[in-house]
Parts: sequence; C-alpha cells; structure tokens
Amino acid sequence: MIEVAIVGGTGYTGIELLRLLARHPKVRVKVITSRAEAGLEVAELFPSLRGHLSLAFSPPSVDVLTECDLVFFATPHGVAQAMMAALIDRGVRVVDLSADFRLRDADIWARWYGQPHGSPELIERAVYGLPEVNREQIREAQLVACPGCYPTAVQLGLLPLLEQELVDPASLIANAASGASGAGRQAKIDNLLAEVADSFKAYACGGHRHLPEIEQGLRAVQPERAVPAQVTFVPHLLPVVRGIHATLYATAIAATGDLQALFEERYAGEPFVDVLPAGQHPQTRSVKSSNMCRLSVFQPQQRDTVVVLSVIDNLTKGASGQAVQNMNIMFGFAEEAGLDHVALLP
Amino acid sequence: MIEVAIVGGTGYTGIELLRLLARHPKVRVKVITSRAEAGLEVAELFPSLRGHLSLAFSPPSVDVLTECDLVFFATPHGVAQAMMAALIDRGVRVVDLSADFRLRDADIWARWYGQPHGSPELIERAVYGLPEVNREQIREAQLVACPGCYPTAVQLGLLPLLEQELVDPASLIANAASGASGAGRQAKIDNLLAEVADSFKAYACGGHRHLPEIEQGLRAVQPERAVPAQVTFVPHLLPVVRGIHATLYATAIAATGDLQALFEERYAGEPFVDVLPAGQHPQTRSVKSSNMCRLSVFQPQQRDTVVVLSVIDNLTKGASGQAVQNMNIMFGFAEEAGLDHVALLP
Amino acid sequence: MIEVAIVGGTGYTGIELLRLLARHPKVRVKVITSRAEAGLEVAELFPSLRGHLSLAFSPPSVDVLTECDLVFFATPHGVAQAMMAALIDRGVRVVDLSADFRLRDADIWARWYGQPHGSPELIERAVYGLPEVNREQIREAQLVACPGCYPTAVQLGLLPLLEQELVDPASLIANAASGASGAGRQAKIDNLLAEVADSFKAYACGGHRHLPEIEQGLRAVQPERAVPAQVTFVPHLLPVVRGIHATLYATAIAATGDLQALFEERYAGEPFVDVLPAGQHPQTRSVKSSNMCRLSVFQPQQRDTVVVLSVIDNLTKGASGQAVQNMNIMFGFAEEAGLDHVALLP
Amino acid sequence: MIEVAIVGGTGYTGIELLRLLARHPKVRVKVITSRAEAGLEVAELFPSLRGHLSLAFSPPSVDVLTECDLVFFATPHGVAQAMMAALIDRGVRVVDLSADFRLRDADIWARWYGQPHGSPELIERAVYGLPEVNREQIREAQLVACPGCYPTAVQLGLLPLLEQELVDPASLIANAASGASGAGRQAKIDNLLAEVADSFKAYACGGHRHLPEIEQGLRAVQPERAVPAQVTFVPHLLPVVRGIHATLYATAIAATGDLQALFEERYAGEPFVDVLPAGQHPQTRSVKSSNMCRLSVFQPQQRDTVVVLSVIDNLTKGASGQAVQNMNIMFGFAEEAGLDHVALLP
Repeated sequence: MIEVAIVGGTGYTGIELLRLLARHPKVRVKVITSRAEAGLEVAELFPSLRGHLSLAFSPPSVDVLTECDLVFFATPHGVAQAMMAALIDRGVRVVDLSADFRLRDADIWARWYGQPHGSPELIERAVYGLPEVNREQIREAQLVACPGCYPTAVQLGLLPLLEQELVDPASLIANAASGASGAGRQAKIDNLLAEVADSFKAYACGGHRHLPEIEQGLRAVQPERAVPAQVTFVPHLLPVVRGIHATLYATAIAATGDLQALFEERYAGEPFVDVLPAGQHPQTRSVKSSNMCRLSVFQPQQRDTVVVLSVIDNLTKGASGQAVQNMNIMFGFAEEAGLDHVALLP
Repeated sequence: MIEVAIVGGTGYTGIELLRLLARHPKVRVKVITSRAEAGLEVAELFPSLRGHLSLAFSPPSVDVLTECDLVFFATPHGVAQAMMAALIDRGVRVVDLSADFRLRDADIWARWYGQPHGSPELIERAVYGLPEVNREQIREAQLVACPGCYPTAVQLGLLPLLEQELVDPASLIANAASGASGAGRQAKIDNLLAEVADSFKAYACGGHRHLPEIEQGLRAVQPERAVPAQVTFVPHLLPVVRGIHATLYATAIAATGDLQALFEERYAGEPFVDVLPAGQHPQTRSVKSSNMCRLSVFQPQQRDTVVVLSVIDNLTKGASGQAVQNMNIMFGFAEEAGLDHVALLP
Repeated sequence: MIEVAIVGGTGYTGIELLRLLARHPKVRVKVITSRAEAGLEVAELFPSLRGHLSLAFSPPSVDVLTECDLVFFATPHGVAQAMMAALIDRGVRVVDLSADFRLRDADIWARWYGQPHGSPELIERAVYGLPEVNREQIREAQLVACPGCYPTAVQLGLLPLLEQELVDPASLIANAASGASGAGRQAKIDNLLAEVADSFKAYACGGHRHLPEIEQGLRAVQPERAVPAQVTFVPHLLPVVRGIHATLYATAIAATGDLQALFEERYAGEPFVDVLPAGQHPQTRSVKSSNMCRLSVFQPQQRDTVVVLSVIDNLTKGASGQAVQNMNIMFGFAEEAGLDHVALLP
Repeated sequence: MIEVAIVGGTGYTGIELLRLLARHPKVRVKVITSRAEAGLEVAELFPSLRGHLSLAFSPPSVDVLTECDLVFFATPHGVAQAMMAALIDRGVRVVDLSADFRLRDADIWARWYGQPHGSPELIERAVYGLPEVNREQIREAQLVACPGCYPTAVQLGLLPLLEQELVDPASLIANAASGASGAGRQAKIDNLLAEVADSFKAYACGGHRHLPEIEQGLRAVQPERAVPAQVTFVPHLLPVVRGIHATLYATAIAATGDLQALFEERYAGEPFVDVLPAGQHPQTRSVKSSNMCRLSVFQPQQRDTVVVLSVIDNLTKGASGQAVQNMNIMFGFAEEAGLDHVALLP
C-alpha cells in the first residue's frame, strides 16, 4: 500500500484520478491540493465520490507532498515546473499529467507555451510516460511526464508503421476529435453546452500545442536514418463529454504486407492496446471509462494511403488512467491494477 | 464461486449484466442465450467486452440453464413466464429482470400487458426484489422479480413519506424522465438519434405499464389503515443514454418535522441509497454506471407540497445492478460485491 | 419600415432577435449595443449572421437609442431599470426582455432579485407582454415587459383551467425543463458541456425567480373571488440547447367536461398556440426555432389530476420571438410578420 | 407559382423539402406520395408542419405527378430509376435527390449499389446539380441529379485547388463527419440514440458509395491533361442530428500563393458559399437549417499540406436545400428564393 498526493485536484484529470484510485487495491490517496477549494470535502465538488472517499482539499505544501510515495500533478502547465525541483531533490517520485516535462527541448516548449520553461535542467530527468514505448525506463524513473491525450491516440496508431518504415514520414496526417472534457473544467464561454452541443468544428488548425509532442514521440521510434516524421495535425471538438478518435493517414512507401498482422504483433503483449478484427471500426464508447486504446488499420481501395483508426478515453488512457498505469509500472504493481474497468457501453 | 446464466443477452440489460459480472469476484457467467445471435461471440456484438469475457451466445435450453446456480432473465415480457415453471420445478434460483412476476395480480398484469399471464400460479412464489423493502424475503427466495427502472426511483423517493403517513396517499405525483436506453435495443424509428436527440417529450401520459407496479409497491409499505396510494405518473424521454430522474410531489397532511433527518434515518444502513445534504440537487451523472440511488427532499416556500428528487442509472440500480444486488443477497455475498463502481463523472 | 435598437446584443436573446429581425419585412435593426464588444462586427461573434446583416456593436447611448422607433432590452436584470426613465421620458417605445418590469410589486422584485428596484415608479407603466392575455393593452403600451421563458410555457398551459375555475388554485404544480441556452451566454463552469451534457437535474427547488412571475400571471386571469393561485415550481436543466417542456399538474374541483374542447376554444384564434389532437404529446423539437407553443391536456386514469403538457422554444416564444410578436402588435404589423418559421425538425 | 410533387415524402429529405417549400414564395406543394402512409395528414407525422401545410400523403401515380411542373424524388436509390422514363417522356421536369442519376457510368453505379442500373439510357440526360459548377446546364435541364451530402461538402472545398492545379490530385484526403439524420429515417438498431449518442466512429472506411461520386465530380473540374483526382474518403458518424464537416487534405505541388484570395475569388458571386476570414474555423451550427456552405483554408506550419474545412447542413445544402436551389435555377426564380434562412445559432 502506497500513499499518494494529487496536486491540483479540482479539474477533470483530478476527479478521474480519484475515481480510479478510490478502487485501486494498492493505493491510498493521502493528500489532494487546491488553493481555491482548500477545506472543501472532495465529495462536495464531485458527488460521484460520495461514499467512496473521505478527503478534503488542502493548500499545496511541499512538506506534506514529500511525505507521500508518489505525487501526481493534475495542474495547468507551469505549475509542476515551479514545484518540481523541491520534490525531486527530496527523492519524491512524480507523475506529471501536465505538459511541463513532455518536450525534450526547452526552447520548443517555450515557443509553444508562450513562456520560458521553469525547470529546463530537470527535463532530462523526465521519462516520457508512454508504456508501449518506454516501459523499462518508466520502471526506474523518478519523474514521468504523462503524454497528452491526442499524442497518446496518435502515437499508438502510427508507431507500427514508422517503426517498420512502411510509410512516408514526411506526410503524415492526424485528424483527431476530442470530447469537451479535454478542454478542462474552466469557465469559458467557448465550452458552454449551448455553444458546442449539436455542433462540430475543427480548431487550432494553424498549430496546436500537441503537434511538437506528437512529432517528437514519433521521431523517437523511427530508425535513425529515417526522414524525421512530420505531421499535419487537425483537432476537432466533439459534442460529447469523453472520448478521442484519431483518423490517421500515411502514404505507403513499401509493400505494406499484412498490416493487420503487423499491428496485432506489435501490440500482442500490451494490456491496454486492442487491435480490432480486420474490417471493424472502433467507437469511442467502446473505451469510455476504460484505459483501453482500440485500433483498426485499413488500406482503402488497395491504394497507397494507409488509414489507422485509434480511440481512447481522453481522461483515462489519455490522462489519468495512463498516469495510474505509469504508477503501477514504477512501483511494480500489476500493470492493470485499478484499471480493469469494462468500458461503459451503452 | 457460482455459475450463472443470462437468458436473452443481446439487449441493454444483458450487456449491463455482463459488464457487472465480468468483474464480480464470486461469479462466473457460464451461459448466455440468444436465439437470433446463437454462435456469435459476445464481444463481437459488444466490443467493450473484448478482453474481459470469452463467451458465445447459445440457443436457450432448459437443460443447460438448470446446471447453473442462478438464471437471470433479461428478456422482453412473456418469455420468463413461459420458461419459469420448468426452472422452478428443478430447483433453479431465478432473478427475473422483466416485468413478468412484478405484479401480484395476474388480471392486472394481463390488462396492462395485453395478454394473459403465462404462469399465474407462480406469482405468489415471486419476491419483489427491492432490497430496501424486502431484503429478508429476498435472502430465501427462489424467484426474485426485479423492479422496473421507474418504479425503483419512484418508490425509493416516496417510501419514507408513506411509511410515516406524512403525506396524502391519494394525490401523489411522479414526474420522471429516462434516458433512451430504457426503451431497449430494438429497431424503432421513434428511438433513432435523429428523432430524439436535441428534444424532450412526455409519453404514455394516459397510462404507462409501470403505474400499477408503482402503486402496488407503495401500498405494500403503507400502514394497513391508510388510504391506498394513488399516483399520477408521467414519464418523459431524455436525450441521454443512461439515467432516470424522478421528481416526486406529495401533499403534507401532518407536521412534516425534519424531513432531511427522516430520509437520512430511513436509509442509514443502505449501501445503495444516498441522501444528499440538505439543499443539494442530485444529477443523473452522479450515479451513472453505479448502483446508487441519490435522493433529496425539499419543502419549497414552506408550503404543503413536499418535493423529493431521486436519481438512478436505469440500467444499473434500475435493472442489472439491482439484479446483481439481489443475487448477492440470495447467495450471502457481500451486498456490494461487484457493485462498488464510482459513478462516471464527468 | 421601422428602425429598432437592441441594447445588450451579445447574449442569446440578442442573437435570436437578430436572427428574427434580419428577415422581418417591416424592420431594420439600426443599432445594437455592447460595452464589451463595441466596434466588433456582429457577424464576427455570430457567424450564422454572415451575409444577412452588416452591423457593428456600439456603446450604449441614450441619444442614439431615442432616434429609434423601438428599443429592445436584451440585458441582464437591472440594466433596463437604470436606463428606462430617460427613454420613456423621450417617448421611445420599449420591449424589455429582461425581468426588470415583469413584477407589479417592487418589494417582491427586490426580494427575489436581491437588490432594490431601480425604477419603481415606472412599473405601472409596463404592460405584461403575454399577447394571449393582454393583446389589447400591448397595442397601446409604451413599455412592454416580456414574460420569462418558464412563465410563458406555464401560463399558457394553465390559463384555461384557472379562467374556468376547474382546478384547485392552491395546489398547482409546474414541473419544467429548459435547454441550456436558458442559462445565458456567460462563462460559468456549471454550464460547460462537460458538466451538463449526458446528465439531467432539478435546480432551484427551494425557489426560482420565475415563481412570483408565474403566480402573478396566473392570479391575473383568475376570477376575483378565487383563491389565489399557488404553484410549486421545479425547474430542471435539459442537456439540449433550446426548448422548454412544462408538465403541469392540477387537481380538478369540478366536473372537467371536455378539456380538449376547452383548450381548443380558448386558443382558437391564437396564431402561436397550437392545441394538439387528443392523445398526442408535444415534443420540444416540434417548436424549435419557431414562435409556437404546443399544448396537450390529459386526465390520466380518469382520476382527479389534470395534466397539461406545454412546449416552447425558450429563445423564441420564451424570449425574442415573443418580443417580436409584441412589437408587431404595438406597431400594427401582422402578428406573424417575421415569425412564420416552420420549426426545425429533425 | 408552380406546382410541385414530392415522391417519397416520409424521410428526412422529404420533411426538409416541405419545411423549405412551405415558405417558398413561388411554389405550392400539390402532391406528396408515400405508399406506407397514404391517407395520413403530413402534419400527423411531422408535427412541426402543423399550421403550415394541409396535405395528405397519397400513393404514387405517374398520372398525378405529370400534372405538376416539377417532381422531386426523395426516395431510396432505385425508385427514381424505375419511374423516370415515364416522367421524362411526358416532359415533366425532375429533381432527383437520390443517388440514381449521379454517376455517369452505369457499370460503376451497379458495382457500388449492388444492382443493375434501371435506366442507363437516361443517365446522359441528367445534369449533376451542383450549381457552383453546372449552373448553366441546370437552367435548361429536364432531369437534375442532386449531389450527395458528403460530395457537396467535399467538392466545394477542393474545387478551387484542383481547378488551379495547385495540389497533387493523386493523394487527396477527405475526412468527413455527418450528423445522424444522414442515415435516414429508417428503423435500424445502429442508429438508435442509445447506440450512437455520446460516441463517435468512422464507418465504411473500406469504401463508401459517395467515393465514386466525389472522384467523378472532382475530375470534371480538372484540366484535361491532369492526373485524375483520387481520394481517400473516410466518413464518420457525429452524435448530432444535422451537419456535415469535411476536413480536406491535399499536397501542394506548386507555389500556392494566396489561398485565401483564391477561395474568395472563386466563390465571390455564389449566394450559398461563404469563405470565412483567414484563420477562422467553420462550425456546423453556423449553417444549421440554412443552405450555406462555409469554408476555410489553411496551410499549417507553412508546410506542403493544404487543409480545407467545409461545413454544410446535410439536409439543406446537402440535400433538400440544394434541390430547391436547383429548382430556382431551372424555373428562373431568384436563386435564394425560399432559402434565405439565417442559420439556427445557438
């Protein structure tokens, strides 16, 4: 049994961590912080937790956090950077769900996030927490940077093709759609139900912060000699609460062989990646509330374009579930501990 | 570890039973029947179950069912009536999720369901499976008739008031709304997304089949001398997948005293009924995917009308979750076994 | 051709006024004000208006407003009260969509809105703009106070019963549900899609500001000798953008006779009230985008409780459409001018 | 004033035609046919039309149809093929909303629709009804084949790029999403609200019937020497009632110059194509209920991939609105007659 803390627990990744950890057999949530809601019972804010958890928000304090075995950051970008050094110095292990330590290059981070990186010296200490790529490094890591939601769905869909150099890395397309919880629990007119329900739109077509993370992650699995992956990434806003669907396009540059077999083999041992039988299309509801990623691969009309479909729950495999999966790996728990939910369908 | 069968597993209460039982520590689903889909892997129909369950639909067979410790009926009305005698005779225990054995009077059943009752002689063997009222009888029952979804939400909301004779039983109002999964997994134009999304309506205002069940259940808890409960019941169709919200109105006929305390005391020991703090309003999402019923009680403007708000997930506490709860009671398992989900919020 | 102004045009009632007036044959929108967005093209904020309207927001100015034939207030409460005297003095006609002049008693207004009334002396000048009751007074009015959305749906449903004294005025129940646009275009966490989609809840059960307006309106049509109408009003939040559905309950105190005929006769000449054929249930989508109210009346199980179902589009008949209807009456236009939309179904 | 008939009026394109034609200044709907609903008042089936239209469904009859100036087919594929010769022979003008006469090659039609073409000899008489390409031919046409919903959105987005040969025609990608009304008003489990709400998926990734239509339409505008357009088309199902959003990708093969200016010029005179200001993203709600197509063009990160965003209402510009637009052109009415709706936002 380990004791963990959650910094910034009033957002959707915070409540999702609580939902998962409340039933985790090896974990007790000891601390959950929020400046704004300090003193409030968690279940007052999130009535779904009534009866499952007795815990109040407390103000953030490094001293309190260091008494925990693990600290999750479920904060807006910038916060983890400011507090990280103190925690790392005292030997605390950290899983950061924010974007603070995902990018390996502090300058690129600064350009996309519009502010200088607060702890550039710690970047090299961070392991990118995509278990399907970095499981071994995660095991020993002190600081794990959890992937973004879109990058998780996109990378899991494209990895097998890039690892095997079957497609042109220079012309990848990631057309993705996310439920509104991906925009966070913040008071903004743009995310009101009356603004986004019963509608659909692309956004950030000129450039989204997840683009450099996606390209970095894809390049990391390419053979060294390969042309670096380049992605056109267009996110869309789905009028649902949860779910990411990525439709990925790549141009075959070699005989693609049996793509279905390739994908099945690549993910054969993975507890949270499911390659659907040939011809099926994944639905976001087939992973809702679960940590699963479901994938399909097509080569329509036997032409050169390969299409991969990838779905996750943005709050689970796209955020808090993956954070728990990383924790499980770091502490030697069964990787599926606390993550064995059957998706909620219907 | 017991072995169970599900008769009629292709509907929403069937898939919900599978979701719950796939993670139940004491139960193995041995058989799931469907004439139409015999031979098909369950996970082909419900991809959320991929990796959680390896089982194919089989044609219904009394011989196979009798090898199980418990049989769930998740069938349209009429089916359980036709097969029940054979199972009861052989000593099989049954939890029937359909309407077949809910009503104590075969004539009333025949009138509301438009056909003669198929096994009137078995009605008296059935225990009405609302644990908050009949827990002791359920323990020993061979045949449990699971309550309907609306009747569960309505009865749990009104019981404390009727037991204490605080309100006029002759003028109760149950205004309720259900998500579209309540209409079942049947090909009907009326339930297409393009027909019911982005809209709201009442239906069956002239008379809904759950009305006699609601009145029967309420009368069963009234003191003998009381005027029999009479309810105006108006169901509505919500453009969501899951959830029932009942708004209940009753006229106080006595000093109501501390209604909040009354409700809290009535449900103090109940694992699946949660009375919210005074002044809060329950949301259906606070119980989504969970077996919980959450309640609030108000007396607006200190006038005579008492308002009770009651929410459940129609597929869980309103159907399959309550069926599992009944099974747990029948077999002496912990009542919360397999039912300890935190509701999915957001 | 008249020229009109809209004060406070950045909310949903503002954009809905523009949608309706852009196609009105007798009206030109000359001015639309917004402090926050002054200088911005209206179509930048509301792209649906591109190509239909060339107009920019301007700061509010009494001088500019007085050059118009009519001023609409589409503002939060308190704003119209502050500006009204200046406009009234200069002879401008006003249709106020806010709550500022709906209540006849400034003290009651102050109690429910938590601040003193800003122009109590003007209250008696205001005509309550429900054409089905006050058409003649509206014709001559200088200041029309447009009814709230819930009060419109509730009053149209209950008027025939109270006018004829068929039901007990002391025990009326108005159970109503509104789409999320009713909460306005304001940045609030509570109205995010991720908070309210896929859920349903009651709110303000202890007391909603529309309650005194509803009771005042109902009492105004009762015969003098009658017991004053008293309503238990419970609003609910629907996860749709537009639409109000009111389910109204009243106890018959006399032989009710042919209620269907009563309702049909009461509304025979009304262009925007449609009594459905007996036995049908109105759906909110059947009035979406239109100024129509559709009604049904039931007496379930031939018992004493009368049930009326009433649907409107909260932004049209519940706000801006009714405002345009009032304008049409005030200026002698055809009452349906600019309001002849067929509802958007599906 | 012309008189028109609608064959097959019980589907969504039928009701949408009625919505538009009920307010059209130059048209009277004389006949609407349905075998299944013959005798039923249209407003019984579609309550939104109550008060706007007094018309009953009648059985289809060539004699009756030939008395009309124009016949709309709003039927499943195959029906118009069977009846067309009789109408054409008698000189009736026809706008066919079905797929029957969209493809120029009867063999390709047969392959994608799984049956022989019923009137191959009439194909050459049909004009493809995309006014932005074929306005002049439509004017004189006796038989107009209305484009499919996806093909309309996709072609309008890609035309300017292909006409100017700015992109590689061999590697076009059309990633599109449609509201559920696109699947028609048919009783299918797959389209129940409980199946598709709160979810998102791709479908027909291996090949959708709109693919050959899209490619045919794009090739028709390419210069003769060009490599024929080839498209990877992946449709998705949106959990909304109305709306299509196409996200289109093409690889620049020349200096693209000012794409914004290119699009604005191409559509400068078009009443129903709106190019948004640079940097804006179209939303489906900005065209809901209207005949408008709104477009944006991007070149993300100044790389080679051009992205075009295109939204329409699938039932309006994607079907019945475009049919009315074609009728307006055929009969010399103002092209916007009956189509001047402001989109319904919010």
